[in-house]
Amino acid sequence: MHDSGSHPHHSHEEQHFQQSNLIRDVVIGMADGLTVPFALAAGLSGAVDSNAIVITAGIAEIAAGSIAMGLGGYLAGRTEIEHYDSELKREYHEVKHFYEKEKEEVREVFAQYGFSVPTQKLLADELAKDEDKWVEFMMKYELGLDKPDKKRATQSALNIGVAYIVGGIVPLSAYFFTDVPHDGLLYSSLITILCLLTFGYFKSKFTGQPPVNGALKTTGIGVIAAIAAYSIAKLFQ
Amino acid sequence: MHDSGSHPHHSHEEQHFQQSNLIRDVVIGMADGLTVPFALAAGLSGAVDSNAIVITAGIAEIAAGSIAMGLGGYLAGRTEIEHYDSELKREYHEVKHFYEKEKEEVREVFAQYGFSVPTQKLLADELAKDEDKWVEFMMKYELGLDKPDKKRATQSALNIGVAYIVGGIVPLSAYFFTDVPHDGLLYSSLITILCLLTFGYFKSKFTGQPPVNGALKTTGIGVIAAIAAYSIAKLFQ
Repeated sequence: MHDSGSHPHHSHEEQHFQQSNLIRDVVIGMADGLTVPFALAAGLSGAVDSNAIVITAGIAEIAAGSIAMGLGGYLAGRTEIEHYDSELKREYHEVKHFYEKEKEEVREVFAQYGFSVPTQKLLADELAKDEDKWVEFMMKYELGLDKPDKKRATQSALNIGVAYIVGGIVPLSAYFFTDVPHDGLLYSSLITILCLLTFGYFKSKFTGQPPVNGALKTTGIGVIAAIAAYSIAKLFQ
Repeated sequence: MHDSGSHPHHSHEEQHFQQSNLIRDVVIGMADGLTVPFALAAGLSGAVDSNAIVITAGIAEIAAGSIAMGLGGYLAGRTEIEHYDSELKREYHEVKHFYEKEKEEVREVFAQYGFSVPTQKLLADELAKDEDKWVEFMMKYELGLDKPDKKRATQSALNIGVAYIVGGIVPLSAYFFTDVPHDGLLYSSLITILCLLTFGYFKSKFTGQPPVNGALKTTGIGVIAAIAAYSIAKLFQ
């Protein structure tokens, strides 16, 4: 929508855009990394009497979770790109070989918004003059597909994976500096709740949501997950 | 795009649609539920000598993960609905109070696709006749927002959360029926890899991707996560 290529502040804006993407990735990965390792460690704290076991399990979870989230996100991004490219190829094929049918589809898109029949016809005729624009239009408004950013998908997956690791180390660190799981849980809860409030706040701010509300929601998920894990692990102990 | 309300097969199609949504939720939750608890249990198998600890940690992880995924998804869905509603209100306000500016924005949307200036003007004039259609158009084409389905968000979060629990029980079950973590890991790997292949296959089939490729990717993530968790837990043991 915004053609930054023709804009004099292009490189500045691009940089700004990349920075906020990075911040968003970090906040998402870190908030998730804080939640599950925190709750897992809390759950184990009620069931085992050794900090070493809590730490081992926590580290195994961080490894598993960061790979599932990072590699999973990377492959999902790749799949999305392949899907877009194959649909793009098909759309080009269709505007070439089913010219009239595709024009009818353009008219249908506009018919939804109450445009008159002559206007629908005019639109389809004008759009059909430029094949690239036509395909671009069909991709977005018939299929609802946005062009995925190839570089961004890889970078984003890496950012989220690393942020998950950093986030996961926070609740775990308390078990390094205490002697028994009970104390570990106390300090882990304190620092994790503080971090969840902070990350929930910024996460909501970046997505344009009410930040205090968002901070409470993000923290609430972590606390409920920890209480559930603690209760269930105690039950199965 | 498809006005099923005016369609004679309405209720049949709706049912079909709901069924495939359910299947998609289950497959997503289950594939994720298989991955992380599997990798966590594998990681602990290399570091502890008691199946009871692996099971306790696994159950704590399933509780934590299903709540993070289910409740997190539910709250994200609610946030999306609130965001849509507040943008909708703003768009109605804008078409009332900044009539000419909003018409200019309609012209800009069409300018991107190479429509001529008189056509842009005609489109904006026609669209402005019906306020509801106009707002609907701006929500989708200016802001890129689709109307979220309120009932669907809640149901989907619940489906995914429950599927995560069911998925997580699969890799863990092997530790119930064996005596030492080494044997548990062997059987857990066998059944989990089989399930990941199956779920990856169906997950890809439902999203229109090559299913064999998808089965290998889903399984690859699980296996890599398990190997990483095992190696790192062994190191920190």
